[in-house]
Amino acid sequence: MRARAPLGVVVVGYGYWGPNIVRNVIERPELELIALCERDQTQAQRFRSRHPGIETWPDFDELLADARVDAVCIATPPRTHYELARKALEAGKHVLVEKPLATTVAHAEALVDLAQRKELVLMPGHTFLYSPPVNKIHALIESGELGEVYFVTSSRMNLGIYQADGVVRDLAPHDLSILLYWLDRRVASVSAAGCTVFNPEVPETAFLTLRFEDGPSANVQVSWLAPRKVRQMIVVGSRKMVQYDDTIPDGAVRIYDRGLDLEIGAPSNYGEHRLTYRSGDIVAPRIDAAEPLSLELGDFANSILTGARPRSHAELGLEVVRVLEAAQVSLSGAGEPVVLARGGEIVARSGSFAPDGGTA
Amino acid sequence: MRARAPLGVVVVGYGYWGPNIVRNVIERPELELIALCERDQTQAQRFRSRHPGIETWPDFDELLADARVDAVCIATPPRTHYELARKALEAGKHVLVEKPLATTVAHAEALVDLAQRKELVLMPGHTFLYSPPVNKIHALIESGELGEVYFVTSSRMNLGIYQADGVVRDLAPHDLSILLYWLDRRVASVSAAGCTVFNPEVPETAFLTLRFEDGPSANVQVSWLAPRKVRQMIVVGSRKMVQYDDTIPDGAVRIYDRGLDLEIGAPSNYGEHRLTYRSGDIVAPRIDAAEPLSLELGDFANSILTGARPRSHAELGLEVVRVLEAAQVSLSGAGEPVVLARGGEIVARSGSFAPDGGTA
Amino acid sequence: MRARAPLGVVVVGYGYWGPNIVRNVIERPELELIALCERDQTQAQRFRSRHPGIETWPDFDELLADARVDAVCIATPPRTHYELARKALEAGKHVLVEKPLATTVAHAEALVDLAQRKELVLMPGHTFLYSPPVNKIHALIESGELGEVYFVTSSRMNLGIYQADGVVRDLAPHDLSILLYWLDRRVASVSAAGCTVFNPEVPETAFLTLRFEDGPSANVQVSWLAPRKVRQMIVVGSRKMVQYDDTIPDGAVRIYDRGLDLEIGAPSNYGEHRLTYRSGDIVAPRIDAAEPLSLELGDFANSILTGARPRSHAELGLEVVRVLEAAQVSLSGAGEPVVLARGGEIVARSGSFAPDGGTA
Amino acid sequence: MRARAPLGVVVVGYGYWGPNIVRNVIERPELELIALCERDQTQAQRFRSRHPGIETWPDFDELLADARVDAVCIATPPRTHYELARKALEAGKHVLVEKPLATTVAHAEALVDLAQRKELVLMPGHTFLYSPPVNKIHALIESGELGEVYFVTSSRMNLGIYQADGVVRDLAPHDLSILLYWLDRRVASVSAAGCTVFNPEVPETAFLTLRFEDGPSANVQVSWLAPRKVRQMIVVGSRKMVQYDDTIPDGAVRIYDRGLDLEIGAPSNYGEHRLTYRSGDIVAPRIDAAEPLSLELGDFANSILTGARPRSHAELGLEVVRVLEAAQVSLSGAGEPVVLARGGEIVARSGSFAPDGGTA
Repeated sequence: MRARAPLGVVVVGYGYWGPNIVRNVIERPELELIALCERDQTQAQRFRSRHPGIETWPDFDELLADARVDAVCIATPPRTHYELARKALEAGKHVLVEKPLATTVAHAEALVDLAQRKELVLMPGHTFLYSPPVNKIHALIESGELGEVYFVTSSRMNLGIYQADGVVRDLAPHDLSILLYWLDRRVASVSAAGCTVFNPEVPETAFLTLRFEDGPSANVQVSWLAPRKVRQMIVVGSRKMVQYDDTIPDGAVRIYDRGLDLEIGAPSNYGEHRLTYRSGDIVAPRIDAAEPLSLELGDFANSILTGARPRSHAELGLEVVRVLEAAQVSLSGAGEPVVLARGGEIVARSGSFAPDGGTA
Repeated sequence: MRARAPLGVVVVGYGYWGPNIVRNVIERPELELIALCERDQTQAQRFRSRHPGIETWPDFDELLADARVDAVCIATPPRTHYELARKALEAGKHVLVEKPLATTVAHAEALVDLAQRKELVLMPGHTFLYSPPVNKIHALIESGELGEVYFVTSSRMNLGIYQADGVVRDLAPHDLSILLYWLDRRVASVSAAGCTVFNPEVPETAFLTLRFEDGPSANVQVSWLAPRKVRQMIVVGSRKMVQYDDTIPDGAVRIYDRGLDLEIGAPSNYGEHRLTYRSGDIVAPRIDAAEPLSLELGDFANSILTGARPRSHAELGLEVVRVLEAAQVSLSGAGEPVVLARGGEIVARSGSFAPDGGTA
Repeated sequence: MRARAPLGVVVVGYGYWGPNIVRNVIERPELELIALCERDQTQAQRFRSRHPGIETWPDFDELLADARVDAVCIATPPRTHYELARKALEAGKHVLVEKPLATTVAHAEALVDLAQRKELVLMPGHTFLYSPPVNKIHALIESGELGEVYFVTSSRMNLGIYQADGVVRDLAPHDLSILLYWLDRRVASVSAAGCTVFNPEVPETAFLTLRFEDGPSANVQVSWLAPRKVRQMIVVGSRKMVQYDDTIPDGAVRIYDRGLDLEIGAPSNYGEHRLTYRSGDIVAPRIDAAEPLSLELGDFANSILTGARPRSHAELGLEVVRVLEAAQVSLSGAGEPVVLARGGEIVARSGSFAPDGGTA
Repeated sequence: MRARAPLGVVVVGYGYWGPNIVRNVIERPELELIALCERDQTQAQRFRSRHPGIETWPDFDELLADARVDAVCIATPPRTHYELARKALEAGKHVLVEKPLATTVAHAEALVDLAQRKELVLMPGHTFLYSPPVNKIHALIESGELGEVYFVTSSRMNLGIYQADGVVRDLAPHDLSILLYWLDRRVASVSAAGCTVFNPEVPETAFLTLRFEDGPSANVQVSWLAPRKVRQMIVVGSRKMVQYDDTIPDGAVRIYDRGLDLEIGAPSNYGEHRLTYRSGDIVAPRIDAAEPLSLELGDFANSILTGARPRSHAELGLEVVRVLEAAQVSLSGAGEPVVLARGGEIVARSGSFAPDGGTA
C-alpha cells in the first residue's frame, strides 16, 4: 500500500548540510517534518532554538519503529551512510542519502539490491542534478541543439574543508553525477593523477581524464587548494558549445553558436585543411531561479507517491561510486588509465615501466 | 669579432606572424630591416605597399651571402624550420626561429649543437616568455612570494586554425615554455589523452598531465574546438596563489593571499584535520604595457651584442620539443604516462592491459 | 531603568522584508521574538508553518500593552511608518522602522523629537550601512587612504517592483544613506530629472546630481526599467579610487592605487598641463562575510542596551527624507538644482525661463 | 568633375591620432597617401623611419597648391580645426577633421556653409559612429527590436590626458555623436554639473542630463579622474534593453529580452500597480571585427566618389558643437537646464536663486 501526502520525514544529522534539508522539508507541502535525529546535543539545541515546535531524537533506532515515519533523509558523514541506509530500508523507510551513496562498490550494490527487493525509493543526494543550469544544459544536449558532444572540461576548485577521504571522493562526485546525467553513458576508462601536500595518503588536488562509451572524453580538475572558487564546465558539441559557470551573475549558462566544419577536399599547401567557421551569437538563456535541494526533495516525494524513478536514481549513484573506486586505483598507481568493463568492475589496469624495463 | 648595432636583419616569411616581426624590427633602434625574404609574390606585394622603401628577396640563399645580414628571423611553417635555420647558422647568421625550434628532437639537438660550435645565437620564438604578465608571475615565484609551487592548471582553447600537426604541437608549446620558465625544472613524465573529430590522426583537443622533477604537477587543456578564447593558468603555491588570464581587462594577473595550513595534531572525530585558513586580499599588480614581440627582439639583439643568454634560449626550445615528442607517444597509446630520463629521451612507456591480461 | 538582554521583540509585517527580520531576530542571542504582528491571515499562516512555536497577533495595539515587548521592528509600507512608529514610541517601545523613516520631513522630524523626549532608540532600517563592503569603504575614507573625495557616481538599476511612491523614494534612499555615511556631510543642493513611461506622476527612472557641503559631488542613476541588476558605485579620491559592485564575486570592493597629479608650471604648447600619473596595483580587500541585517539588529540591540548611538541613526534617516523631498521639488520642476539650507529645509528653487523670457 | 580613385590624401598632424589615420589610409585601396604634413620635426622623423618612401611637408599651404591632393585629414588640436579646414575647403579639398568640428558654433556653421557652397565633403571624425557595436545597436533601434527608447545612461571615464578644453569638450563628443546617431533627434535641453580639482576653469569630471525632442532622456558621466577605463552605455527601450561595454571580451553588446508591462486596472491595496515582467534570454550578438577608423575613411572616400552623405556628416558635427556650447553655459552656472530652440541656438537659461530670493 502506497504512502499518502504529506509524507512523514525524519532528517538525520544537523551538521553542515542537515539544516538546509530541514528548512526545505518544512517549506514543501507534500512533506512533513516529524523530527530531527541528532546525537550531538549542541546541534540538537541549535535546531530547537530555530524550530521550537519540533521534536529531536538522539537515537536512530527510535525512528525505525515510528509508523508516522515514511522516509528518512540521511545527512551524516559518508562512512556512516551504508549502515544507516541499510537499517532504514530494512525497516521499510524510503531513503534519501547524501552523496556518495556508500564508500565502497560492494556496499552501494548491496543498498541498491535491498531497495529493489523492498520496493523502496533509494535516492543519492546528487543535488547538482536539480540545479536549473545543469538541467538547462541537459535539455540542450537531449534536444540535439549542441549536436554530438565531443568533450567536456570541468574545474571545481576552492579552499576546501579537508576531508580524510581526499578531494576526489569529496568533489568529483559532483562532476561525475553531472557527466553521467548529461552524457547518459557508462564510463569506459578513467585515469587520475593527484598532488598531495599535507598527507601522502590524501591528495588535495587531482586531475581526472574520463573516456565514455562511444566517444566523448572529459577532463576534470578538482582541488581544495585553489585561490578562488572555480565552478566551470565547458561542453563542446558538433553544433554548439556551452559554458556553465555558477559564479557569473546572469550568465551561469552561455551557449556559443560557433563551430568549425572541416571541408572535404585536399589539404592546402601549408598543411591546413579548408575549414568553415560558424560564428554566431552567444546566448545566456533565461534560467528559472529555484533552490535545487527543494526540487530534489520534491522529486523524492514524487517517487515515493507515484513510483516514478527519481532523476538522481540509485543506479546513477552506484556508477559514481564505481568510477570513484577506479579513479582511486589509478591515483594509487602512476596515473595510468583504468578500464571499466560493462559490469562496471575494474577488469584491468596498466602498469608503468621503470627505466630498467621492470614493472614498477 | 662581434657585430655592432644596428644589426642587419632579414625576416623570412610574411604570412600570419611575419608582418608583426617586420613592424617590430622597424621600431627597434638596435635593429635594421635589410629586406624581407618571401617566395610568395602576393605576400611580397602586401609588404611593398606598406613599406615602399624596403627590398624583398624571393630567394633564401641570397641573404646567406649578404654581408650586411647579421641575423635572420624565420617565420615559416614548422616543417621548414630545421632546414632554414641550419643553412643560416652555417652561413654565420644569428637565428630567431618561430616555435617549435624543430619538428623532431634529433633536428632540434642538431641545431643546438651547430649554434654552439659556431658561437651564434639560436633563439626559439617563445614569445609568451616576454609577456609582462608571464614575467610578473615568474618574479613572484623566484622571489618566493608564492612559496613552494604545488601545481599549475592551464586552459588554452579557442576556435583554432586547423594545422596538420595537431593541437598539441600547435598550442602546447606555449604552456610548456611558460611552465619550464616558471618552474625552472625538467619534466619527469607526461601523459596525454586526445579527442579527434575530423581526422583520427590529428587530435583537435588534448589533455596533458605533467610531472616535474621534485614535485609540482600540471594539467593542460588545449583545444581548437572551444566556444570562446580561453587563456587561463592558475598557479597554486604554499603561500599564495596566482591566476593568469589575458582576457580580463585590468586583471591579467591576480594574486590571492589565501591558503590552507594543516595543523599538527590528531584528526578530529569526523576524520577532518584541523586547518588554518589564511584569507587575505586579492591583488592585481600593475603590469607594464609592452609588446612581447618587441621585448623578444630586444633580447635577441642583446644576446648577439653582449653574448648574454636569451630568456628564450635554445635548450628551453629543445626541452619543449622533447616533451612534445613524449606527449605524442602517450597520445598514440592509451594515454599512459611516458617517463623522460634526465637526458630527456624517452626511456619507457607503460602498456595498457586488455581484460585477458595480455599487453595491448 | 534600562532593558536587559534578551530583549523582547515584535516584528510588524510579514510581507517582502519581514521574513528576513524574523529569521535574524531568531538567530541573534540578545533578541527574543515574542510574536509576529500581521493583519493579513495568509501571511500569518506562512509564518506559523515555519515557526510553529511562536504567536501571531493580528492587532497592533496588542503589542503596545504587552510588558514583555521592549522593541518593535516595523516592516510595513512607507505610508504606515509614521503612525505605527509614533504609537510604539508613545507606548515606550524602542523602534526599528524600515526606510524611509517617514514620507514627509514634518513626520520624520516629529518622530525624531518624540524619540528624544522619551529617550528611546529610533532607528531607520538603512541596511546598506551594515553591508561589509560599504563599511570597508567607509573605513578607507575615514583613514584617509582615499585622500580627499572628489566625486561619487552610483547606478542602482533593476527590473523593480513598481511602487506608487516612485523610483526615487524606493531606491535613492540606499544611495543617500550610503553617501551621508561615507562623506559625513550635509547635502547643499540636489537636482533631479526623471523619465516616466507608465504614469506621468510616477517616474520609473531618475538622475540625481548632489552637491555636498565643502565640495564633493555625486551623480546617482536609479531605475526600475533596467536590463540587469546594476549596483555600482565609484568613489574617486585624491589618493586612490574605489569601486563598489555587489555583483562581482570576490571583488565587491576594488581599490585602485591610481591617480593624476597636476604639476606646478606653465602649460605646454598644446594647452596640456604637465601631469604625473600614478599607476599602482588594484586591490580587492578581504571582506568578511556577514549578513547586514543581522549586524543591523545587533546595533539596534546594542543601542537599547548601552545607549550608544546606532550607525543608522534617526538624524541620518531624517536627512535622507529631507533630500528626497528636495529631489521631488526638482523632479516636479524642470530639474533645476534645489538648495538646502543648513537647517535642511528648502530655501530656494531656481526657475526655468521660457523662450519669451517669462518665468515658467 | 568628380575625383577618381585612388584619391590623393594628405594627413595633417602626426601626434596621438595621426599615426592611426596614416596606417589606415595606406591600407585602403581607394586612398593614396601623398604626404604627411607635420611642422614638428621629431614627429616627422618618426613618420619617415616607419614609411621611408613617403614625403613629409612642414608647410600646410604647400598641400593647398598641389593638384594631386583631393582630400585632407586634419588631426591637429581642436583650436586649429577651423582655420585649417577653412583653408582646405577654399582650396577645393575635401576635409575629414577630427572632432570637434570646431570650438564654437559660429565657426562650425561657417564651415558647414562653406562646404555646401563649394560642394565638398566636410566630415567630422566621430569615429565611434563606425564602431561595429555602435552600429549594431543603431540597427536594433531602427528595426524596432528595442521598441520605443525610454532612456540612455553613459559612463565614459578613465585617467585622461588633461586638456585645456576640459573633460566635456574632450569626452562628451563621443557620447553626443553616438546619442544623436542612435536617437536621430535634436537635443531639447541639457544640464551639466562639473567637479574641478586642479583648475576651477577646467572641470575634470562632469554629469550631463539631456532631454531629446519627443521624449527620451540621457544621463552622461564623463571623467578624467576615474580608477579604471569605463565605457558603458545602457539603452532601455519598451521591448528590450541593450548594454554596450567595450571592455567585455565577447560581450560588447548584450541584448536583454526583459521588460516591465503595466497592466490596465486599479492599483492594488498597497498602491502597487499590477505588472507583467517579461524575462527572456540575454543575447550577445555576433559583432564583426573591423577597425572603425578604416570604415570611417572608407565612408569618407565613398562620399567623395559618389556624393553620398557620410554617416558622420557635417550637420551632426555641428549639432554636437551646439550641445557642447549649451552644456558649457549650464556648467558655468549652477547646473540648471539650458533649453535649445529648434534652430539649435540657446534661447534661454534658468537662473538660480539665493536664499534672499535675488537672482545669482
